[in-house]
Amino acid sequence: MAGANGAELAIAAIRGGALGSLPCALLSADRVIEDSAAVRAAVKGPINLNFFCHRLIDDIDDSAWRSTLAPFYAEYGAGPPTTPPPVRAPFDEAMCEVIEQVRPAVVSFHFGLPSDALLARVRRAGSIILSSATTIAEARWLDERGVDAIIAQGWEAGGHAGRFLPADPAAQMGLIALVPQIVDAVSVPVIAAGGIADGRGIAAALTLGASAVQIGTAYLRTPESLIPRAHRAMLGSEAAEETRFTNLLTGGLARGLTNRLVAELGPINPAAPPFPYASAAASELRKAAEARGLVDFTPVWSGQAARLADELPAQTLTERLTADALARLASGSKIR
Amino acid sequence: MAGANGAELAIAAIRGGALGSLPCALLSADRVIEDSAAVRAAVKGPINLNFFCHRLIDDIDDSAWRSTLAPFYAEYGAGPPTTPPPVRAPFDEAMCEVIEQVRPAVVSFHFGLPSDALLARVRRAGSIILSSATTIAEARWLDERGVDAIIAQGWEAGGHAGRFLPADPAAQMGLIALVPQIVDAVSVPVIAAGGIADGRGIAAALTLGASAVQIGTAYLRTPESLIPRAHRAMLGSEAAEETRFTNLLTGGLARGLTNRLVAELGPINPAAPPFPYASAAASELRKAAEARGLVDFTPVWSGQAARLADELPAQTLTERLTADALARLASGSKIR
Repeated sequence: MAGANGAELAIAAIRGGALGSLPCALLSADRVIEDSAAVRAAVKGPINLNFFCHRLIDDIDDSAWRSTLAPFYAEYGAGPPTTPPPVRAPFDEAMCEVIEQVRPAVVSFHFGLPSDALLARVRRAGSIILSSATTIAEARWLDERGVDAIIAQGWEAGGHAGRFLPADPAAQMGLIALVPQIVDAVSVPVIAAGGIADGRGIAAALTLGASAVQIGTAYLRTPESLIPRAHRAMLGSEAAEETRFTNLLTGGLARGLTNRLVAELGPINPAAPPFPYASAAASELRKAAEARGLVDFTPVWSGQAARLADELPAQTLTERLTADALARLASGSKIR
Repeated sequence: MAGANGAELAIAAIRGGALGSLPCALLSADRVIEDSAAVRAAVKGPINLNFFCHRLIDDIDDSAWRSTLAPFYAEYGAGPPTTPPPVRAPFDEAMCEVIEQVRPAVVSFHFGLPSDALLARVRRAGSIILSSATTIAEARWLDERGVDAIIAQGWEAGGHAGRFLPADPAAQMGLIALVPQIVDAVSVPVIAAGGIADGRGIAAALTLGASAVQIGTAYLRTPESLIPRAHRAMLGSEAAEETRFTNLLTGGLARGLTNRLVAELGPINPAAPPFPYASAAASELRKAAEARGLVDFTPVWSGQAARLADELPAQTLTERLTADALARLASGSKIR
């Protein structure tokens, strides 16, 4: 949800009874401190800070990608940036100091875990540690490293797949197969993520053996989310029935709706450099299109269940999800 | 399950309380009559006959595919067949006459539906009509044509995806997203299929709103299934954690384990002709490898949850699945 929500959505979700999350992958250290303080000033309740753990690469050559984008540069009158925007940084020393200062109840990682040294410091700061697994092998790996709970990220999930061990992306499991197999393989609680946007999905995930669920896309449709109007409209339309993994928007495989870039280049293009290096070459294009109300070059992430979500304020949505899930679980006992 | 099970498995499943299915896509009309009679002689209870509704194509040229297979022909000493095996036929006039004679309680179709005229005759024979949907659009299409229930086939499902309307295979939904969206879109009961191999999955699918579930892969692991020993061993091993769609074995996209052909050519190869025409060129290779105990050219279908299945006789498995699912549903009401 990096870029898609800030303190306001986290506050509303906490008020509704959820563990509110602040996606920090695109924030400065100062901004993380500021937003955490804003959440705490507004509401009691645990807070989760989320970070990415990708590896940066020296000497990225994105010239093939710029060539691929050249026709769009010409059409939109917006070329490659003369000063590239800052590269999305992985969790590092500076962010670890933020954790030691903020001491959030929960720290979650995507794309594996930081170094053992940094992880030990997060643990000493008293935070519960979560990370995502897209395969049973990744879940075992995380369990061996002592995380407190594992997020089972199914094929259905929107945004970046958290894959961090070698695996064929086309072999990713759907949640109904992934959750019970991870539950059986690890010693810690499992949090189900992907394709859950209403009470039925929550109740089903708990029935599979998950201890909790993580919901993203449904919150993109709340008034508190920061996504462009055009993205919001797509999430509520029939277009949301077709989502695909694309490497065009960041270089990493992430599930989203079909914007112009994905429609014209196809969702996967080998010219795009690896995560997070595909964003830079399109940064001016994205700005030019967004200024015209278009998401032609904007990540329009979505999981597979966007249309199941009620369009409600985040607090009300959270309360509704909980009530619906509990009602569903209670009615399950009546099936004979 | 065509080729993987016959009357014996259907009888055991019916004894366990399931709707027993006979996959008829690879059977002659006489054999369907014979197997149906064998089931009825052994056990009371409804029987389901399953058929494919693909379209045959005139003048298939599989020369590129034969060239691709040439190194294997040389290695295994088994070339392309001099007399090609009969092509897998879609549901037709002859099979419709079988239905009119056998009058099975249920007829299920894969790859859409037969012609309106044939469908009307199946309906007049008194059979309940089912077909599979891989998308919400396919579910709406089937609902408009008056099927009695729709099988929601998730991304997780083993064997052939039932896709029959144009759609990107990479956009197929996982079951946890697909079932509730189809339930909301159609007027008839929904049967969940894919990634379900234990009581947790059944209970979760019913919680999502499904009225029933369809289970395939778990039954491949019963002693009654007819799959080769090597296929059975793979289903119980860690190899079963990675399944992928391949077009190499039949020409149609089907989810399976990684045999030698898939490992060496990659799961998708454009030289393979469309379904069902890729099988013929490898038919002698398959025989030669199977004679040596190998499944190098055999379809080794599997859904994503093979390892969740208990290895039990089919009747016991069916009873266990039912009991486990009911217990799971009952315990769901205790979650607070």
